[in-house]
Amino acid sequence: MSILESLYSGTTLKQLNIEQLKVLCDEIREKIISTTEKNGGHLSSNLGSVELTVAIHYVFDIPTDKLIFDVGHQAYTHKILTGRLNEFENIRKKGGLSGFPDPLESDSDAFLVGHAGTSISAGLGYCRSRDYLKEDYFVINVVGDASLFNGENLEAITSNLDKPKKFLIIFNDNGMSIGKNNNGLYKLVSKITIRKSYTRFNSFLQKTIGKTFIGKFLRKIKRSIKRSLSSKAFTDNLGLKYVGKFDGHDLKTMIKILSDVKEFGAPTLLHLQTVKGKGHEQAENDSSRFHGVSKNLAPSEHYFSDGISKILQEQIIKTPNLVAITAGMKDGVGLGEFALSHKSSFIDVGIQEEHAVTLAAGMAKSGTKPIVFIYSTFLQRGYDQIVHDVCMQNLPVVFMIDRAGLVGADGKTHQGVFDLSYLTHIPNLTVLSPKNLSELKRMLNYAISKNSPVAIRYPNGKINDIFEEIEENSFNKFEVLKGDLSCDNVILAVGPRAISIANEVSLTVDKSVLIVNARTVKPLDIGLLNSVKDKNVITVEENSIIGGFGSLVLNYYSSINSNTKVSVVGVKDEFVHLGTVDEQLEFNGITKDNIIKLIK
Amino acid sequence: MSILESLYSGTTLKQLNIEQLKVLCDEIREKIISTTEKNGGHLSSNLGSVELTVAIHYVFDIPTDKLIFDVGHQAYTHKILTGRLNEFENIRKKGGLSGFPDPLESDSDAFLVGHAGTSISAGLGYCRSRDYLKEDYFVINVVGDASLFNGENLEAITSNLDKPKKFLIIFNDNGMSIGKNNNGLYKLVSKITIRKSYTRFNSFLQKTIGKTFIGKFLRKIKRSIKRSLSSKAFTDNLGLKYVGKFDGHDLKTMIKILSDVKEFGAPTLLHLQTVKGKGHEQAENDSSRFHGVSKNLAPSEHYFSDGISKILQEQIIKTPNLVAITAGMKDGVGLGEFALSHKSSFIDVGIQEEHAVTLAAGMAKSGTKPIVFIYSTFLQRGYDQIVHDVCMQNLPVVFMIDRAGLVGADGKTHQGVFDLSYLTHIPNLTVLSPKNLSELKRMLNYAISKNSPVAIRYPNGKINDIFEEIEENSFNKFEVLKGDLSCDNVILAVGPRAISIANEVSLTVDKSVLIVNARTVKPLDIGLLNSVKDKNVITVEENSIIGGFGSLVLNYYSSINSNTKVSVVGVKDEFVHLGTVDEQLEFNGITKDNIIKLIK
Repeated sequence: MSILESLYSGTTLKQLNIEQLKVLCDEIREKIISTTEKNGGHLSSNLGSVELTVAIHYVFDIPTDKLIFDVGHQAYTHKILTGRLNEFENIRKKGGLSGFPDPLESDSDAFLVGHAGTSISAGLGYCRSRDYLKEDYFVINVVGDASLFNGENLEAITSNLDKPKKFLIIFNDNGMSIGKNNNGLYKLVSKITIRKSYTRFNSFLQKTIGKTFIGKFLRKIKRSIKRSLSSKAFTDNLGLKYVGKFDGHDLKTMIKILSDVKEFGAPTLLHLQTVKGKGHEQAENDSSRFHGVSKNLAPSEHYFSDGISKILQEQIIKTPNLVAITAGMKDGVGLGEFALSHKSSFIDVGIQEEHAVTLAAGMAKSGTKPIVFIYSTFLQRGYDQIVHDVCMQNLPVVFMIDRAGLVGADGKTHQGVFDLSYLTHIPNLTVLSPKNLSELKRMLNYAISKNSPVAIRYPNGKINDIFEEIEENSFNKFEVLKGDLSCDNVILAVGPRAISIANEVSLTVDKSVLIVNARTVKPLDIGLLNSVKDKNVITVEENSIIGGFGSLVLNYYSSINSNTKVSVVGVKDEFVHLGTVDEQLEFNGITKDNIIKLIK
Repeated sequence: MSILESLYSGTTLKQLNIEQLKVLCDEIREKIISTTEKNGGHLSSNLGSVELTVAIHYVFDIPTDKLIFDVGHQAYTHKILTGRLNEFENIRKKGGLSGFPDPLESDSDAFLVGHAGTSISAGLGYCRSRDYLKEDYFVINVVGDASLFNGENLEAITSNLDKPKKFLIIFNDNGMSIGKNNNGLYKLVSKITIRKSYTRFNSFLQKTIGKTFIGKFLRKIKRSIKRSLSSKAFTDNLGLKYVGKFDGHDLKTMIKILSDVKEFGAPTLLHLQTVKGKGHEQAENDSSRFHGVSKNLAPSEHYFSDGISKILQEQIIKTPNLVAITAGMKDGVGLGEFALSHKSSFIDVGIQEEHAVTLAAGMAKSGTKPIVFIYSTFLQRGYDQIVHDVCMQNLPVVFMIDRAGLVGADGKTHQGVFDLSYLTHIPNLTVLSPKNLSELKRMLNYAISKNSPVAIRYPNGKINDIFEEIEENSFNKFEVLKGDLSCDNVILAVGPRAISIANEVSLTVDKSVLIVNARTVKPLDIGLLNSVKDKNVITVEENSIIGGFGSLVLNYYSSINSNTKVSVVGVKDEFVHLGTVDEQLEFNGITKDNIIKLIK
């Protein structure tokens, strides 16, 4: 019986010795690699956090003590250690485990995460309640070096509120995050090189020396030591005791330090150095490439993002002032090649979506052509900046919104099903949705030529497509794909999958169906809408029914006092459950069968 | 002729000597006080920034050099110095000047501002374009100590990108902001007490010493000086030269320093200490009270927020675990008295809306009852946190959304006309809108009793109201205010002003009108909607027509295949122009006359 299996047969983690814990880590690592090979998922970050997670579980009492991961894509070891070994086989599958922590899945998951930057605020919330309710437990945050410098974590860590006791932030520093970490605060913190000896000395002083004469003298020494540790002033001022930098793969040391932290109880920032992809040679050497993978550890395939660099390389010849901006997702949004070929026309600000959007606004105001590449779900962070900085000034920023629509296995925290709802009510903004890559290319060209903000949303995954070479310089009209105005039924479909479903419908029913690529979500193609207002109109989109494309169509007909019958097919008013994209389409009734029922 | 008038008759600022500049400052201060007495507006912050603005305009060349204020409520002096003295009389009035910088108003306003935290990103955007396009100008940001620590500014200032040359952040530190500034980074920066002598020495070294032996020795000295300035490491690591702390009312010193900064051209953080309300005794002593004022410098009256503290004081007897959270707007949202009477049940995180929302989520998850008070327009910053942290976990956080709807003189950056659009598509969230304060009180009680998230939105300004004492423990139904189901016309009105307009309509027309207080925006009162589906339904709301209450009603009727005729009255798809609330209602057609036209 492996040590991991023994944990499921009565043995507890705390009964193991260091050598057994090391073996356990190896077994967990194997499990993570073999499962990720089958199901896809986050590999590098999970391999990097095996030992630190084992050490946390060894020292603290989860779920009495609360463990909150930032982002949460590094929580596989935690799942395996908290009774979910069997279910781990089905991670990222319908009915299976989420790839991220989720309290609905286990009490050991203290908080739902998925987006970066939320953990410290959530942890501080836990501490507030605990102290208010006079309860007693530890709150432990695990934050990577890319996420620590997201604006929300920066707010939480710098906030004017006193830091609570029994609060530990473990700074999981792999020194590179998805790209190289060049953040200013990171540079500051990473210069801190004091070790435990200092901390020991410090607490010795605090514990043993009162207001005696010798005490004063020793405090003077302490201050002079402190002064020589200039960066440390940073964490001191944040109300956190700094402890670091330690090897996050050295179980023995971590257990000792965590035990000390637990004993002292002071609010602490523990700085650990880890290696992304640890224990998997390829992943160690190319952690970006192995950050998120598909089955057999193949790079994930994404029809639209895989074409982005090429499109930009062509476009920049026409538009030399073009600058591509991303927020920590260079490879995810497909900018890897472009960043290499056009270094000075590429900006990655790190996981700082708010900054990315307003930076783009400033650039648009001053003469360059910013194109912002952010996933639909992460652009939610920039909502206020899109309203207040970009659209209120009507600035020509182009938003390339990747992973718009249903995303499949990444689960509910990553669904791109709200962007039409959070964008279409913003004045001045044009919102487009291409049916394929060549249309995306033409749309981008059009968007760049416009002197106002444009958002282009496109989904993830593989899409069957024939690359067309059409000349098209304007996108203020829908495109009729099939049928004509004699048809009784009209399907207005947004995006490639909706169009594909509409095509299937027309091949199945014996009623006449006009199929329209509703590519200009805003402004709507009024001409076409007017010409079909006595027909049975069905809108299909991968966005919430509330506030999406269908709502815009309903609004339009209401504004012209038309009694057009409109049926809206889209994402239900529920967070989308785990599954494949097809399963998620099915769950929401975005299906051929459902549409056929709506046909007269 | 006053010196200020002389600037409008050919004299330029740069021709004045120090004594004349001082007189000019006095004249500007008088102008600000007398105009604010007439029009209302931001007093304290504008009085605190007179000298620093004059110094900037004296040293730099605006608009060639770009001046960007954070928030922008401190830009009155800047407006007076850039050709807008005559229009200044009409600040905050229809057709007049905005209370905030706006490029549409003047080329000297480099960027539209209103919300906190955007300026450094925008300034860096300007620098990027400038350097890319090989242009040559200075970019100057003026940021107050409350705004500097907003998450977006923290992202921008810590971002991994190198800081550009000719980039100056003026840190306008009045040491208290709206409340006392206890931010961790603020404490760090405020400990820096080096003065210009060090900076001089520093640049002397850099300029004059090469790699000589003496050079190495001097650099060693430099390093040891540096080490003793522990906090300074912070700004060094951010790529900014720190210069400070200087008196922001001492014109002569500021002009000298700004000239040096201009000459050296290195990216710089200049730390100035100023006094809020400077030159107006009452405002100096009570800058919170004089932060934003009405005519005759009276405190602004806000029907709903003025009742908040009393409601909470009553509620906390029933709900002892209640905790009120705000983000830098304690007095604005009406929590002043409650904060005094229930200190341990009150949290002000500063201008950190993201942190506020997730902190509340963490607290709700761990057993207390957080109630988050944020203006509609500022809650846009917390959109992703509402989706991802609160609603996806279905956590019982109550959002009290003040200034929802049209806000009048604060202008387009502060309109609360999007919250229904950015909230109603979020699953699990209940959205309510009270007609008056007593209904708000009952709704809050109901919201606290629910085990899921609830948002309650209410407008600013004065509202005529009779305080009713009704027992009501559930809010899943609209309220019929007038008429019955025999009426042909139905007005579904959201919020007190819409209801008041509906009442006027019913008093004017001779048609039968059912008037409904559509207080449960989500979920809708399906029963009532079903019972009026053959009638002429008119929805009225102070929210964007797109994605608002009317859209929800349209969506509902579409979902039941009903051909109900629905007319949606609300805010047009345009940013709202400056004016009074009545003028803004008129501009959007949210009027008695417009609704009468829609009645059969």
